[in-house]
Amino acid sequence: MTKLADFRPKRRAAVLAACESLKTGAIAVSHLANVRYLCGFTGSNGVLLLTGRGATFYTDPRYDIQSAQECDCAVKVVTGPVWEAVAKDVRRKRLTSLALESEHLSHAQWTALAKEFGKAVKLAEAKGVVEGLRAVKSPDEVARIRKAVLLGSAAYEKALALVSEGMTEQQVAAEIDHAMRLLGAEGPAFETIVAAGKRSALPHARPTGAKIRRNQLLLVDMGACLDGYMSDMTRVAYVGRLGGRLSAQARRVYDAVLEAQLAGIAAVKPGARCKDVDAAARKSLKQRGLDRFFTHSLGHGLGLEIHETPRLGGKVESELKPGMVVTIEPGVYLPEFGGVRIEDTVLVTESGVEVLTPTSKEFAVIA
Amino acid sequence: MTKLADFRPKRRAAVLAACESLKTGAIAVSHLANVRYLCGFTGSNGVLLLTGRGATFYTDPRYDIQSAQECDCAVKVVTGPVWEAVAKDVRRKRLTSLALESEHLSHAQWTALAKEFGKAVKLAEAKGVVEGLRAVKSPDEVARIRKAVLLGSAAYEKALALVSEGMTEQQVAAEIDHAMRLLGAEGPAFETIVAAGKRSALPHARPTGAKIRRNQLLLVDMGACLDGYMSDMTRVAYVGRLGGRLSAQARRVYDAVLEAQLAGIAAVKPGARCKDVDAAARKSLKQRGLDRFFTHSLGHGLGLEIHETPRLGGKVESELKPGMVVTIEPGVYLPEFGGVRIEDTVLVTESGVEVLTPTSKEFAVIA
Repeated sequence: MTKLADFRPKRRAAVLAACESLKTGAIAVSHLANVRYLCGFTGSNGVLLLTGRGATFYTDPRYDIQSAQECDCAVKVVTGPVWEAVAKDVRRKRLTSLALESEHLSHAQWTALAKEFGKAVKLAEAKGVVEGLRAVKSPDEVARIRKAVLLGSAAYEKALALVSEGMTEQQVAAEIDHAMRLLGAEGPAFETIVAAGKRSALPHARPTGAKIRRNQLLLVDMGACLDGYMSDMTRVAYVGRLGGRLSAQARRVYDAVLEAQLAGIAAVKPGARCKDVDAAARKSLKQRGLDRFFTHSLGHGLGLEIHETPRLGGKVESELKPGMVVTIEPGVYLPEFGGVRIEDTVLVTESGVEVLTPTSKEFAVIA
Repeated sequence: MTKLADFRPKRRAAVLAACESLKTGAIAVSHLANVRYLCGFTGSNGVLLLTGRGATFYTDPRYDIQSAQECDCAVKVVTGPVWEAVAKDVRRKRLTSLALESEHLSHAQWTALAKEFGKAVKLAEAKGVVEGLRAVKSPDEVARIRKAVLLGSAAYEKALALVSEGMTEQQVAAEIDHAMRLLGAEGPAFETIVAAGKRSALPHARPTGAKIRRNQLLLVDMGACLDGYMSDMTRVAYVGRLGGRLSAQARRVYDAVLEAQLAGIAAVKPGARCKDVDAAARKSLKQRGLDRFFTHSLGHGLGLEIHETPRLGGKVESELKPGMVVTIEPGVYLPEFGGVRIEDTVLVTESGVEVLTPTSKEFAVIA
């Protein structure tokens, strides 16, 4: 397998090329996911300076050994604030302009640098430059996401087998997270959502001490982080026996959401606009009169972060490209009843779409 | 027990009073821990606008139900970007100045607001205003931190009983996190550190697939998040039997670090300068010739975040006050041998200090 490091010099060159439109030949990258993407560093503090002459990563003494192991570029370990060392080198190198990630850098830090540089160095706002590159995954990144997806699904199967009536949402979440860790994940990709009954109608429910009862929906939204890459999946099960009035309504909502999810997936292909993919799922729900209960976007890119470009939202004009990895996750939320969301992680291929998530979408019943 | 909500109107008044020195009577708070502190909201997106006429919290439709349940002030749920809604109301209220948290707001967001306001609203940089208030905990906050500390210690005991030679660092971390969750924690306060052998010399080691062997040090740095509040503790155990050459060296280092930790704790009292508390522990290690291996600050405040004001560092002149909660965590890191760090969470009382962490600091042996 090609190593991620092989891609990094190309990525750094692409970032510098993108900086030309900002009228500068240098950029200091500080958003940690972008830093990792461009030089391999996985720690919590550092700045990567890219110029036409090469790449230098600056970090603090806690990461002395780690940065030397991880980075495929020059490394400077500095005592004192990292930005001060970067600024000093920018002046020493006699750079006259520098791009900074204005969406990630605090205004206070920007102001301090602007003051430090005075008129000698002109600052340019880089917005989404590295994020734009990251939207299309390299084959090696796809392989890593695939592994994270498989791990997440394996953990779900393992944990779900332990779930029974009377357990709390928190206990179920704890079992899922534990299963992920034992399978080798660095941790959950985000705070695992377990929501039973009416709480499943809250799209961002945190697990509570509430016990899981019979004749309830149980929604699980979870992802694993493995080797830095994320997965994301939502499944809904029914606790109890099918057959009653409640289960019939649950089934109707479930089938409608699944149909919408499949319609969304079917719309994924190179060249499709994000808004049209969103619309395909929404249209399907409209035919059932349920579209007004689908209150969020259809999905989002993911990779080194759980939410990345592109967003599959109703106003997003940009087109899908081969190598993009996105979630497809329509939901229907009925406040007094509960919610159903079904979510897979999918890959945009040269010819269409590949669903990476292997977990069954049959309406599962926990007896 | 007094509810946290009872303190919030006072806190909001104190923030507005602090804004007077910035020559404004209004502030928009967006750093989420500060938002939670001031109005109770625990979600992931929102802005709190404080003016002399009252407080209004702005969030998106995902948090419609949750914000109504949590906030003790007016709530506006808006579709579209939250900051746009805030800006619109700032103009509608004819405010002529507004403080923003420049250390937390991105430069891009700041610039967008400055452009939107033009000359009509003057922006002021609020730095550490809410963080300064948060450094001194209310009795109710101390009670919550106490619970998080007790939970963390209970999870440590429970997990450590399962540890044996041959387990990986990752497995031990998974057991600790699982124990925390089953005891009711929202999750770990930070990524649990489990480092065996030489890796214990890396202050920020991430757990790996490396197996725990005999005659190794095992360092665990962990904390629990409960009801939003954090705990933080580090303990080091010895795997194997005491008696050999290695264990004797480990013991010497351990005893020196423990002595330094106790010296640091003894220096904690109202009016003590942060740098003097740090110096007390460092001086103790110097007497053993080990101070050059203590490569970080002695400790940090904690509460709604794991790292808060004050920092107990060698250059920090500020004084401790009753109600502050800080960690005391000296360490000695010998690259070819391993590291020892001992860390408690302590409370500054009216008369001195109370160690909140109940876990034994005897040199533990895992047979």
